[in-house]
Amino acid sequence: MRVAFLGLGIMGQPMAANLAKAGHDVIAWNRTPGKTVDGARVVSTPAEAAADAEVVWMCVSDTAAVNDVLWGENGAGAVLKPGVVVVDSSTISPSAERHNAERIRQAGADYIDAPMTGSKIGARDAQLVFMVGGEAASIDKVRPLFDAMGKTVHHVGGIGLGQAAKLAQNLQNAVIFESFAEGLALATKLGVPPEKLVEIVKSTMTRSGVVEYKASFVLNRDFSPNFPLKLMYKDIKLMLEAARENRIKLPALETVAEIYEVAIEEGHEDLDYAATLTILEKWAGILVKGNAAS
Amino acid sequence: MRVAFLGLGIMGQPMAANLAKAGHDVIAWNRTPGKTVDGARVVSTPAEAAADAEVVWMCVSDTAAVNDVLWGENGAGAVLKPGVVVVDSSTISPSAERHNAERIRQAGADYIDAPMTGSKIGARDAQLVFMVGGEAASIDKVRPLFDAMGKTVHHVGGIGLGQAAKLAQNLQNAVIFESFAEGLALATKLGVPPEKLVEIVKSTMTRSGVVEYKASFVLNRDFSPNFPLKLMYKDIKLMLEAARENRIKLPALETVAEIYEVAIEEGHEDLDYAATLTILEKWAGILVKGNAAS
Repeated sequence: MRVAFLGLGIMGQPMAANLAKAGHDVIAWNRTPGKTVDGARVVSTPAEAAADAEVVWMCVSDTAAVNDVLWGENGAGAVLKPGVVVVDSSTISPSAERHNAERIRQAGADYIDAPMTGSKIGARDAQLVFMVGGEAASIDKVRPLFDAMGKTVHHVGGIGLGQAAKLAQNLQNAVIFESFAEGLALATKLGVPPEKLVEIVKSTMTRSGVVEYKASFVLNRDFSPNFPLKLMYKDIKLMLEAARENRIKLPALETVAEIYEVAIEEGHEDLDYAATLTILEKWAGILVKGNAAS
Repeated sequence: MRVAFLGLGIMGQPMAANLAKAGHDVIAWNRTPGKTVDGARVVSTPAEAAADAEVVWMCVSDTAAVNDVLWGENGAGAVLKPGVVVVDSSTISPSAERHNAERIRQAGADYIDAPMTGSKIGARDAQLVFMVGGEAASIDKVRPLFDAMGKTVHHVGGIGLGQAAKLAQNLQNAVIFESFAEGLALATKLGVPPEKLVEIVKSTMTRSGVVEYKASFVLNRDFSPNFPLKLMYKDIKLMLEAARENRIKLPALETVAEIYEVAIEEGHEDLDYAATLTILEKWAGILVKGNAAS
């Protein structure tokens, strides 16, 4: 298929490369110039990328960036032909997606929201999990593209529900990591070796994908970004906005958000979100460090 | 071995039965009379049970109950012979265990703290996981008893560190469940079917032992107690006490504790701790219910 891929960040670049590798005709664009994608042509505006596309796939940083890519100067929204499907894999607010879909549909095109999870490794290995909102017919049309980038597509419901599911899922990652960080802080302060706590966690119902993935990085104090703290905080703000819009109360998430704010004040925004542990460590006067760590 | 088993509650009764089944000579006692254990004799005071025992195994509700069983009228502490090992599988404060060990060692006996996890099903099926603090020699002495009741023994360190690990582990269960409850509340309010969120969670890094175990109960609104809310709250108070004693800050746990307090005010203390979800539901004006639930 002829695909315009808009946004070549930490996730977008490997995703676009996997589309090209699968034989699709990819024209890519990125806000900051200079990015390249194996097998794809890179152009200088979203409109140029989208002009001839059957599918426009967006993967940018936030609601404002999606607005800009679609409706800003040289935006893709102005050049869409009837029958085109626009897919948004950014994580943005569910209500913004409903608004985008309405405008896109006026042009005779269709829109689906398809945020994903799986980290940069999942993007590289085409193992992403997509959470999708929109019409089944449009999802089926772009299924070969999903298949080239991911392993699972969850059709959650109508427009915006992909984002809703993504927020509800990522909320859990943020709070589960915090549970691990607080457990580690308490254990360490009381004299339990942190690697022993990890071993116990893995042998009990307390096990989780988050700990499996993060524990060795934490014990080695490697806070290089896999999912940067500032992006998790961006998602947390979306969750809290959605909660407020809908008059619901998420107390643990509110508390976790405050820890992220302190971590950002401390200058950790470009580290992995696991660096929120260091805030607990400051409060406890400890350092959680595995024996293997030098 | 000749074992005095003190405390025949939801966990203690199947544990004592597994000891008897493995051929050990079990004399049991319970505060509330009338409990029986297949293959064991039940007597009417801790001292009577412990009089001839090689090992005294406690599994009672809290720090006060352990004090009473050991040091109260007809307590086991007064009849211990040199060489006896006292094991505490209750979940109580790490500092109380250090105090108990000191007194027990003055009698020439030894003491280990060995709280466990694995739920009543794990107790029945001898699949418990023990977190143990104390001397290796004493742990080795009672290893046949551990083997008869559990599948894994983690020797964490000195006296009290079994309790410390248990608190740090169960902290995570409480907060992980809260992450699931908040994710479900947000998803449900935004229109995501709760069973769809569970499916997504299970297919991503968000997966956890807690969700694997609790999701179907939650979707069926079955809040019958597997681990009663009041017992999780008791453990949460121990965690917060240990945190305060040691001058550390556990913000998400503090927030979760407040939700348990509201749940207890609402009369849910004898339900499973999963019933904390109903507090979020009240705040959101929703009901999280799977399609399969009638």
